[in-house]
Amino acid sequence: MKLSFQHLNLPLRHTFTLGNGSSRTHTPITLVQLHYQDHIGYGEAAMPPYLAENHETATVFFQKINTSLFQYPFDFEQIHAYLDHLSSGNTAAKAAVDIALHDLWGKITQQPLWQLLGSKQADLKPTACTIGISEPNELTKKIKEAEAFSFLKIKLGSVNDNALVAAIRKTTDKLLYADVNQGWKDREYALDMSYYLKEQGILLLEQPFEKNNLADLAWLKAKSPIPIIADESCQRLSDIEKMVDCVDGINIKLMKSTGIYEALQLFNKAKKLGLKTLIGCMTETSCATYAALSIAPLADYVDIDGPWMLAEQPFSTPVLKNGICQYSDKPGLGLSLID
Amino acid sequence: MKLSFQHLNLPLRHTFTLGNGSSRTHTPITLVQLHYQDHIGYGEAAMPPYLAENHETATVFFQKINTSLFQYPFDFEQIHAYLDHLSSGNTAAKAAVDIALHDLWGKITQQPLWQLLGSKQADLKPTACTIGISEPNELTKKIKEAEAFSFLKIKLGSVNDNALVAAIRKTTDKLLYADVNQGWKDREYALDMSYYLKEQGILLLEQPFEKNNLADLAWLKAKSPIPIIADESCQRLSDIEKMVDCVDGINIKLMKSTGIYEALQLFNKAKKLGLKTLIGCMTETSCATYAALSIAPLADYVDIDGPWMLAEQPFSTPVLKNGICQYSDKPGLGLSLID
Repeated sequence: MKLSFQHLNLPLRHTFTLGNGSSRTHTPITLVQLHYQDHIGYGEAAMPPYLAENHETATVFFQKINTSLFQYPFDFEQIHAYLDHLSSGNTAAKAAVDIALHDLWGKITQQPLWQLLGSKQADLKPTACTIGISEPNELTKKIKEAEAFSFLKIKLGSVNDNALVAAIRKTTDKLLYADVNQGWKDREYALDMSYYLKEQGILLLEQPFEKNNLADLAWLKAKSPIPIIADESCQRLSDIEKMVDCVDGINIKLMKSTGIYEALQLFNKAKKLGLKTLIGCMTETSCATYAALSIAPLADYVDIDGPWMLAEQPFSTPVLKNGICQYSDKPGLGLSLID
Repeated sequence: MKLSFQHLNLPLRHTFTLGNGSSRTHTPITLVQLHYQDHIGYGEAAMPPYLAENHETATVFFQKINTSLFQYPFDFEQIHAYLDHLSSGNTAAKAAVDIALHDLWGKITQQPLWQLLGSKQADLKPTACTIGISEPNELTKKIKEAEAFSFLKIKLGSVNDNALVAAIRKTTDKLLYADVNQGWKDREYALDMSYYLKEQGILLLEQPFEKNNLADLAWLKAKSPIPIIADESCQRLSDIEKMVDCVDGINIKLMKSTGIYEALQLFNKAKKLGLKTLIGCMTETSCATYAALSIAPLADYVDIDGPWMLAEQPFSTPVLKNGICQYSDKPGLGLSLID
C-alpha cells in the first residue's frame, strides 16, 4: 500500500464569516490517495484555519506514515493505534487516511461503503445548510440559494443575534439549527436567547460557550427549552463521558474523530450515555461528505453541507432529493471525479 | 457475514502413537465456512484428543459468535479481542475463524494469501514429516513413504529412544527433528540424549519435559549441544517472555496461537527476544496447512505435514518439490475441493 497526497486551496462560494468576525475566501484541503493493488482509495483532510491543522502539518504527518507496516490493510483498530502513536493531534490528517481505507474497502469488495456499513437510504434524514453571517440583502440571496435544503443552520455570536434571526425569519420559515461557535460569554443572555430561539423555530443550539466552560454549558442545558449540542467541547471518544451532564447531545465530525472508525464508536457511546447526536462537517469536498453520509443514518440531526459551500471541487456534489443527500451506487465512497 | 461449520472425523493414514503410548486411527476436525457477499472463506479447527478441544466444545464456541458484530470483517485485532472475550480457551476454534477470515481476504482481493502477507515461495524452507512411534519393520515402510521430504521428525519418550533412533538411522541419513512431547522426567538422561541425538544428526529437540517444568528446560538448554524448542510450554503471546531463559526457540502452531494474526505477533516477538522459531501443525487438512504455509517463511524450521498424515481429506494436498511445499496461485488459502 502506498500513500500520496495533494494540497488544494479551494475557492468558497461565498466569503465565509464566523461570529467572531473572522472571514475567508478559500479553504485548505489535502486529498490523500491510498494505492492498493489496482485500486485507489480517496481520503480528505479538511482544515479550516481556525483549527490547529494546515497543509504543512498534514505534510509532516503523512511523511511519518510507513504504510508498509499496514500488514492488514483493513485492521482499522491497529492502523488507528499506529496513527495515534505517531502524533496526538492531526485529527483531520488521520481522518484522511481512515476515509481512504474505507473507500478502498468498498472498491475492493465492489460495494458502496454505506452498504458495507449497514446504512440505508431510507434512514437518511434531511440535512441542514449553513448560512454564514451576512448583511441582510446578501442573507436573502443565500437563503434563496439554499432552497433545496429543508433545514438551515445559522451562525450566531455576532453583535446582534436577534436582528439576524429576525432578518432570516422575514425570508423563510424553515426549521433552523443555531451554532454559536463558542461566541457567548454571558449565561443569562444565552438562556434568554434559548427561549427566543425556541419561539423562532430553532431546533438546537450548538456550542454557546467557550469549549472548556462546561459549568455554564451544564447550567444552560438544565434550563434551556431547546437541546444544547457540544461541538468544540467534544472532539474524540475520550471527551464524551464528561459531556453527559453538560449537554443534550454532541456534534460528531470525521475531522475531529479521526475518521469513520472512531465516529462509529462515538455514536455507540453517545447512544449508551443517552446523548443525542448530530453529524457535522467542515467546508469540504464530496470525499469527506460521502464518508460522513455513509454513517449519517446513525445521527439524530444531519448537518452535511460541505460541498455546497465550495465554488469548485474535484468531485461531483451529491444529489439532493427533498433535502436528503442521495447515496451513490458506485463502490466505496461513490465519488465521481470532475474532469 | 455468516458462519457455518461441519464436524469431520478423518481417518489417519497410519495409527498414530505418541511417546506416552496413546494412539488413534482417526482425528476430529471442524471445518468453518464464513460467507461474505458471494465469497466463502474456509477455516479449520484441528483438535487432537490429547488437547482440550473437541467437536462439542467447538459447537458451543461457534454458537456463541455473533458475526453481525464484525462491522469491519478484516479488523482482525477487534475480532480477536471479541473471540477472546467470549472464551479464554478454544484456541483451535478461534484459529478456524481467523483462517476463514484470511481466506476471505484473499478471495475478495483475488490474491493468494501468502502474497498478501508478503511471503515468497523462494523463502520457504523444506518441511519435516513426522514418523509416529512404530515397530521396526513398520518404521522402514513409513520412512520410505516419506521419501519426498528432506527432514523427518521422530517422536521420542517411549521405552527405548536409542533403539528407535538407531533403527531409523539404519534406513535413512536424513536430518531429523526430535519431539519428546513432555515425555522425559530425568534431566541427566535428557542431557545424555541431547549429545547422542547431536551425534545422530538430530537438528533440534522439542519439549523434553512437562510443560510447566521450566527449571529443567532452562538447565538443559544451558548444556545441550542442540537447540531446545518449547511446544506445549508456549501456547500464546502471553507465554513467550518466560521462554527466553528456558529454551532456544518456540514451536508456533496456528491451533495454539488462535490463528495467523497472533502467530505473526509471536514471530515478531520471538525475533525481538532472540528466540528461534519452528512453525508446526496438528494432524490437519490442507486448509490449516496452507494457512500455516502462508507465514512459514518467517520460521527457522518448518514442520508442516498435517495433510500427509491423513488417509482422506476434503482438499487437495499441497505439491512438494525438493521437500518444499509449493504455494497455490489461487486466491486466498489456495484450496481445491476434492469432489
